Parts: sequence; C-alpha cells; structure tokens
Amino acid sequence: MKKLYIIKIGGNIIDDEVKLSSFLDKFSVIRDHKILVHGGGKLATGVAEAMNIPQEMIDGRRITDAETLKVVTMVYAGSVNKNIVAALQAKHCNALGLSGADGNSILSHKRMHPVTDYGFVGDVDAINAPLISLLLQQDISLVFAPLTHDAKGTLLNTNADTIAQELAKGMSSLYDVSLIYCFEKNGVLRNADNDNSVIPAITLSSFMQMKKAGTISDGMIPKLQNAFSALDAGVRSVCVGHADKLDLLIKNESGTLMEHE
Amino acid sequence: MKKLYIIKIGGNIIDDEVKLSSFLDKFSVIRDHKILVHGGGKLATGVAEAMNIPQEMIDGRRITDAETLKVVTMVYAGSVNKNIVAALQAKHCNALGLSGADGNSILSHKRMHPVTDYGFVGDVDAINAPLISLLLQQDISLVFAPLTHDAKGTLLNTNADTIAQELAKGMSSLYDVSLIYCFEKNGVLRNADNDNSVIPAITLSSFMQMKKAGTISDGMIPKLQNAFSALDAGVRSVCVGHADKLDLLIKNESGTLMEHE
Repeated sequence: MKKLYIIKIGGNIIDDEVKLSSFLDKFSVIRDHKILVHGGGKLATGVAEAMNIPQEMIDGRRITDAETLKVVTMVYAGSVNKNIVAALQAKHCNALGLSGADGNSILSHKRMHPVTDYGFVGDVDAINAPLISLLLQQDISLVFAPLTHDAKGTLLNTNADTIAQELAKGMSSLYDVSLIYCFEKNGVLRNADNDNSVIPAITLSSFMQMKKAGTISDGMIPKLQNAFSALDAGVRSVCVGHADKLDLLIKNESGTLMEHE
Repeated sequence: MKKLYIIKIGGNIIDDEVKLSSFLDKFSVIRDHKILVHGGGKLATGVAEAMNIPQEMIDGRRITDAETLKVVTMVYAGSVNKNIVAALQAKHCNALGLSGADGNSILSHKRMHPVTDYGFVGDVDAINAPLISLLLQQDISLVFAPLTHDAKGTLLNTNADTIAQELAKGMSSLYDVSLIYCFEKNGVLRNADNDNSVIPAITLSSFMQMKKAGTISDGMIPKLQNAFSALDAGVRSVCVGHADKLDLLIKNESGTLMEHE
C-alpha cells in the first residue's frame, strides 16, 4: 500500500506567520501522499470580538451558537484554509482545501449532550474515502478545515484532532497511514516542565500505567486515547511531536510514537 | 461532447436566503455537469463595517487593500461558498467548493493599472481544466468563489463574471459548454423600464448596432462583450436572464441568448 501522512496542526502554529511558513516548507517537501488538518487558532476569537459576537464558554469550551458558527465558517474554511492552500501552492505543493461539506468528504451529526448544548458541534459519522483517494492520486495534497456537515444543510464545528483521527481510520484500508499530531511540545513528556524528557514510545499498557500513576497530563489523555483507538482501527503509526520538527517526525526521529504491544 | 452548464449568480441572490434556496433547488436538479460561480454579496461590506475596516471606493469600485482581501477571503471562500455547498448537499447535489488556489484551479496575476491601484485584484491567466474535468466526471458539481491566486502565495479578488467566462472558455474543448449569467432582470431589455421587453437573441452585429444607437445599458455592455468573446473562444451558447428562471434558462426558454451570426 502507498504511504499517506495525515498531519494535524493547532492554533499555536496557525497564529504565528513565521512558524506556519516554516511548517509548510517542511510539509510541502513530503513526497508521499499527505493530508493536513488544521485547527482554528485565535483569529476566530478576534473576529468574533471585532464583530461584537459574545463568546459563551462552558467548562472552558466554546459554545458554537449560530453567530459563532458563522464566524468559524468564515475564519476556518475561508481565511485559514485558503491562506494555507495559497501558501502551499507557492511552495510548489498542489494543495486543495476542503470542509467536510465539500464533496461530502466528512459527514457528521450534531452532538447531543445530556446536560450541555454545545451548539453546532459535529461528531463524525463517515468520511468519503473514494473521493479523498481520487484527489490524492492526482498528487494533490488535501487541507481540511475543522468543519463537517450533516447532509441537511448545516455545517458543524468539529474538533481537528478528531477529524485527523477519523480520516486516518477511514483511509487505512487503502493506504499505509501515519497519523502525526503536531503541537508545541517535543512529545509526551515524563516531566511536564522538561521539554527534553520525551518518552520515545508508548504502548497501550504503558499508557494505562502512566494514566493510573497520574504521570501524564490531563490534556494529553484524550490525544493518546484517540491515538490508540486509531491504531486499533488499522492506522499504521501515530505520533505526537513538535510542529517545528515535522521533517524528523515523519522519519520517527522525534516525538512520541504510539505503538502496538 | 458532454454538456456542461456554467452558471453565475450575483449578490442579489446570495443576499436573499429565500431566493438563494429556490435558485439552488433549480440548480440541484440539473442532470448535466454543472459549475456554479458566485459573487460576493453585501455580507463582505457588512463584515468589513462590523470590523471597522474602511472600504475605499474609486469610481464606484471597491479597492481590495490587504485588510479587505482578508474580509473577502473569509466571506466569499468561507461563509458564502461553504453555505452554498452545504445547502446543495442537503438537496442531494454533491457539490464541492473551490477558490482558484485550490488545486491550482484558477491562476491569475495582480492587475497592474496605469493610474489606479485596485489592490489585490486578479486577472485570470489559466484554468486547470484536467482537474475540473476529473471532478465533474465524479458527478461532483463545482462551486467557485470569486478568488484566484498568483502561485506566489497571494489570493486575489476576481470578478465572478470573468471567472465564469474563463471557466467556460477553458472547458469548451472538453465539453459542450452553456454559460448562463443570472441576474435580477429577465434578460437584455429593449426598454430598461419594462421587464417584459426582453430581446430573445442578440448577434454580434445586432449588439454593435445597439451599442452605437445607445439602446443598451452601460452596465450590460461589458457582460455582452464577455459573452461574445466566450462564443468566439468555442463556448456553445451564452445567455443572460433572471435567476428565478434557471429552469427555463437552461432550456433557452427565457432570457437573452447570444449567438453567432
């Protein structure tokens, strides 16, 4: 099977023009098939503030009401996505940006939560693997905005980590998929204060032990749970590492690699 | 050759939710290959105002400075494009939205004007016919936002009429292309005050006569010039008519048809 890298970047890179350009340099030279999934960044908050749209937060999570959905659609699918695509084109990487509505590439349903209404937030039901594969076969690199659709005309704000994971799972019957989560640390750390204390590899049982012992940060737990769920679903490898080191991450020479026992 | 409809809609439809939905109903049931090109609408002005970005106008034309480019990228490629795509998906039409940067679908260069700097405005150099054709062959309907790119990393605001025309020209060697400009009148009118005075057909020589006699409105002249230029380049037919009558326009039962002598 052909190799496919699915790489997720978050707001900390998107919001920093220099870091983003340097990251896209490294992304653009990957010769294998590749998909970039980006988060939102602070721009959405800035635009919402500038437009006087109040941002409701519950337990530290933004509620995507109708007005906020308009803002994130503009910022994620418009501003962030198209600027990344244009920048990649300049780096001789033929990129094509998609939301989940485009070509019905990611179908989702509105999240129903027993207590809190998070608003227009989608949980993924299916990805359109044949279309994605067709585009990859043209040597097109895909760039996904964190928006999906419910096939009833509504766009839904969807976690970029989840989109990356669902794409990785869905493409793993057709490609040898490596899923890479880029963030602002060098990997999963033994000691949160020491960026050199990267754990090079984690198995499911070592993850369980660390979780039990409380040696793993709360923010990291869902990322790792997703990683092991992806491995279970046939994804070849999942790694977490620093966005500045994408060139090393794709060679498994940096970051933390999640692996089967 | 297979039939391809390239249909342009402007702000007057985009800004009216009911009209837009009714238009998209008619668009979604066209069985042949189809491309929708949309303009911007008033939303961009509203967002710019809300964000306190001053809009500079010269001779009635908006100047696309760097801040305005950010706004139109958000609104045209994000808000307008993705909402149309999601609405079409709900109408069982598998739509996929593109800016000209996506898949290098429309390459342009920044307009150089001897007197006025219109800012980040692009004139089209080339369209990526193989990619567009590949997508159409998957029974995907394409939805173009009026933005192109210069392959140097810059998005450029580009007239939607021109994009429709360039797409029509560029696809005419592969498809039997009908180019349809939808607007808020029933067609080219003999008498601007009488919406029933539609001229059913115009040839290049009758256009020249009308232009000379001043019986054609100034706003219509560039549209018609574009139409004849498209016919010259191999486009099968060009028509101008009311967005509410798309079902009739595609059958040449409404609007004004531009034809060869």
